Amino acid sequence: MRIVVLAGGIGGARFLRGLKQAVPDADVTVIGNTGDDIHLFGLKVCPDLDTVMYTLGGGINEEQGWGRADETFHLKEELAAYGVGPEWFGLGDRDFATHIVRTQMISAGYPLSAVTQALCDRWKPGVRLIPMTDDRVETHVAVTLPDSGSGKGSGERKAVHFQEYWVRLRASVPAEAIVPVGAEQSKPAPGVLEAIAEADIVLFPPSNPVVSVGTILAVPGIREAIAEAGVPVVGLSPIVGDAPVRGMADKVLAAVGVESTAAAVAEHYGPGLLDGWLVDTVDEGAVERVEAAGIRCRAVPLMMTDVDAAAQMAREALALAEEVRAV
Amino acid sequence: MRIVVLAGGIGGARFLRGLKQAVPDADVTVIGNTGDDIHLFGLKVCPDLDTVMYTLGGGINEEQGWGRADETFHLKEELAAYGVGPEWFGLGDRDFATHIVRTQMISAGYPLSAVTQALCDRWKPGVRLIPMTDDRVETHVAVTLPDSGSGKGSGERKAVHFQEYWVRLRASVPAEAIVPVGAEQSKPAPGVLEAIAEADIVLFPPSNPVVSVGTILAVPGIREAIAEAGVPVVGLSPIVGDAPVRGMADKVLAAVGVESTAAAVAEHYGPGLLDGWLVDTVDEGAVERVEAAGIRCRAVPLMMTDVDAAAQMAREALALAEEVRAV
Repeated sequence: MRIVVLAGGIGGARFLRGLKQAVPDADVTVIGNTGDDIHLFGLKVCPDLDTVMYTLGGGINEEQGWGRADETFHLKEELAAYGVGPEWFGLGDRDFATHIVRTQMISAGYPLSAVTQALCDRWKPGVRLIPMTDDRVETHVAVTLPDSGSGKGSGERKAVHFQEYWVRLRASVPAEAIVPVGAEQSKPAPGVLEAIAEADIVLFPPSNPVVSVGTILAVPGIREAIAEAGVPVVGLSPIVGDAPVRGMADKVLAAVGVESTAAAVAEHYGPGLLDGWLVDTVDEGAVERVEAAGIRCRAVPLMMTDVDAAAQMAREALALAEEVRAV
Repeated sequence: MRIVVLAGGIGGARFLRGLKQAVPDADVTVIGNTGDDIHLFGLKVCPDLDTVMYTLGGGINEEQGWGRADETFHLKEELAAYGVGPEWFGLGDRDFATHIVRTQMISAGYPLSAVTQALCDRWKPGVRLIPMTDDRVETHVAVTLPDSGSGKGSGERKAVHFQEYWVRLRASVPAEAIVPVGAEQSKPAPGVLEAIAEADIVLFPPSNPVVSVGTILAVPGIREAIAEAGVPVVGLSPIVGDAPVRGMADKVLAAVGVESTAAAVAEHYGPGLLDGWLVDTVDEGAVERVEAAGIRCRAVPLMMTDVDAAAQMAREALALAEEVRAV
């Protein structure tokens, strides 16, 4: 069974770990979001790719869901002592090695997809991890920063890097627009369209529908390839009981005019893309609305409390895909 | 009192700490060797500049004489796990920050001299530290590597970076030639010639006469400026009792045809450059030979066992300079 998964960071990585447990022999290709990649200290950092790689490769900090286990932060402390920031982005000493190797390979002319493959040679995540594109795409968020006390009443409107919005500002101000800068000019990385064309099933894990899955779909050709693949496309709601399970998805959903409900996210993907949708049991009431929109829907537990729970979610998603296929 | 010191790494740094203790109010400019700079993991590493900066700034690992105190090596361990080397060069997590800041500034267009000044803004070494040049100079060592068992009898002749010779090979094979690649085309960094022209005294600490002080003197203009400054130039022998106090200076002295004795090193610098020379008390017998060569010489204890001992050496060097001046 060939499965393609479009993944963001923590939610995608944890779902993938469940999927690997549920169907260990499946051939899984992960198309990773690179829209939240950022250059820090002259190094290229790919938070979502690394979270998937570390989680599946056994190197993740389990508690926080990102970064390395047994991590220290001496390098970052020293950068701060030099007055070199940003201080709000938590790069650990072990994690730095990944970014140094990546940056060195990119400087030597390797595309990100080849670099990711080389990094995975070490981590052996058990999936094929491909960045959505080898081109630079950077998600920016338009915000109005609070008035800094000038008394003039209105704040400064500016575009900030997604990481600055998410990590530094902690989504504390409304996202007025989300722009995947560079997406329109980008091309899918080698292997992305081929994997989709050869897939038996495409899954959207409970990743952020705007800045994770949405950014991947913004790379020209990927959405079309999925829609035209003729195989079941099943997603899992990242919204449970009208609130994001993790992170602040509601903030970025508002920016694209989508309400923070499991049903609204399904409608946002739309029946032209999505064949099946899993909502949490607390959102049982949303099933009817989603099905009315032409998307087959089931209510099952969607809290990834541990790997077993994530594996059960993966089994439910695969079962729904088979239901879709049988129609 | 304006003092210019030509410094290599550990020996130079420890002498400078003694000098600062001996004459805390002196205006000291250090011209640092950059011939052993090396690019590692895409980062520019300046071992000698950093050793001076960390030693005078209170961040040095006292026991080993280079690198940072309270250091960890997690990043390096991870690089090794990725199969990325070299493993023989010991960069610690804290130390990495210096190289990251330096590399970022150089990428942004700042010359090494400006970068060094910025790094010193944090460390406050109490001296003005200037790299000998902003241009790239890299000391290479011609060696014949031992036959690797092919049975053909003769080994491979090749040029290796000085760090590879010193740190990786530990000078285990003879240095057949020492070449400061790029030196001929280099220019002294801004401030170097001015500092020499305005100096009251020029000191050569017990640094390596070939690959440290010798490399600095190989930058066109520096040797001439010192010779023409018309002020006392006094050096301290790095050779005590026919052996280097530290390191493997004898190996590189052999490459330039100089015997490993305190007297031979003085003659190597020559009376055209050097006015005074301090040898250790065990080399009392060398005094006559050095003076016969036209260089004023004194025998005093030259073991930098602690800061007080280094301070006493500095006082002896300054006293000899005043003797020279009085002639």
